[in-house]
Amino acid sequence: MRTSARNALPGIVKAINQGPISAEVDLEIAPGMTICAIVTKRSVAALDLKPGRKATALIKSNFVLLARDVDAGKVSARNCLAGVVTNVMDGPINSELTLDLGGGLELTAVITGGSVQALGLKPGERASALIKASHIILAVD
Amino acid sequence: MRTSARNALPGIVKAINQGPISAEVDLEIAPGMTICAIVTKRSVAALDLKPGRKATALIKSNFVLLARDVDAGKVSARNCLAGVVTNVMDGPINSELTLDLGGGLELTAVITGGSVQALGLKPGERASALIKASHIILAVD
Amino acid sequence: MRTSARNALPGIVKAINQGPISAEVDLEIAPGMTICAIVTKRSVAALDLKPGRKATALIKSNFVLLARDVDAGKVSARNCLAGVVTNVMDGPINSELTLDLGGGLELTAVITGGSVQALGLKPGERASALIKASHIILAVD
Repeated sequence: MRTSARNALPGIVKAINQGPISAEVDLEIAPGMTICAIVTKRSVAALDLKPGRKATALIKSNFVLLARDVDAGKVSARNCLAGVVTNVMDGPINSELTLDLGGGLELTAVITGGSVQALGLKPGERASALIKASHIILAVD
Repeated sequence: MRTSARNALPGIVKAINQGPISAEVDLEIAPGMTICAIVTKRSVAALDLKPGRKATALIKSNFVLLARDVDAGKVSARNCLAGVVTNVMDGPINSELTLDLGGGLELTAVITGGSVQALGLKPGERASALIKASHIILAVD
Repeated sequence: MRTSARNALPGIVKAINQGPISAEVDLEIAPGMTICAIVTKRSVAALDLKPGRKATALIKSNFVLLARDVDAGKVSARNCLAGVVTNVMDGPINSELTLDLGGGLELTAVITGGSVQALGLKPGERASALIKASHIILAVD
């Protein structure tokens, strides 16, 4: 399966916290780097998600917020990934940015050109990607 | 009511699965074609949603992922609609694609140009739309 | 902390409705104007959210739908903010619109150019912003 999601981060399911409708799934995408996805309980069953299972987090680039001087403890977005901007491609309304997260991991974000200007984002600048858990889709092989 | 959501799919509520905060609503948009939306329990009450009630699923085009060679059983997105690409309109960052789902149903997706290239999407190619249930808004008349 | 979210609406937490995984947080952003965000229960704890606490709602511009002739009681989006279009900036695929909500509040939305045309949106026209509670990120100082 190939998808249009510009971000496909493979990992290992570490923990699942099930509710009556939704479930939180913690996925380790690098040593010590865990991301959290909220999917439905039905999807946990359908994909047979459980600790130790390989899964891939699919994240559309326009679901990614970029932030500077972020304090992860002060924002409800469950995923906050720090990195360095490596590329900025500007369009008339939106811009596409690439963030190097280290360890060979990259993330693509699409934000408005207005925000690129306001945050002074350009190659070499540090930024963090904020992603709500409910915006992540999980896929298995 | 008219909205900017490029996708407005009318249907009939088939089932509702209520949790303490959220509810899953299954909406039949064509014979045998059901989509799932997650809305709040409060919205289910406010809109008086129940089996048999007409409702329309509103889906912003930038919430739609496109995929090829998809196995719906291996992705957590609760909605996977197969179709054929009928139109591609390219911008500098984003592209807008139209997918013919058959039965007179169409879906519009906005994805990055990078993904259009990577997936080789062009008119005549088969693709599936992946939409997370929590990204769908329901409206009633 | 500065983020790429074009909309950052400060307010006061008025109520929290906790479920096993998610929580609804009502945030008053102006007298009598409350918006609802769904965040995880874990985030409520991590940010120490409780009635009376200051928090800021972060809303990416591409999560905002615009609607005309909207009846808030007939749509599941928990947030419906009425205003007047003050600016439209067109790109080849997407357009960026500014909505004056009154009381000094503004909202930026990115929707497709096709929708701008279909809805006849231009400066001076009334429109409402529809935002799903699950698309809002909360931040605290």
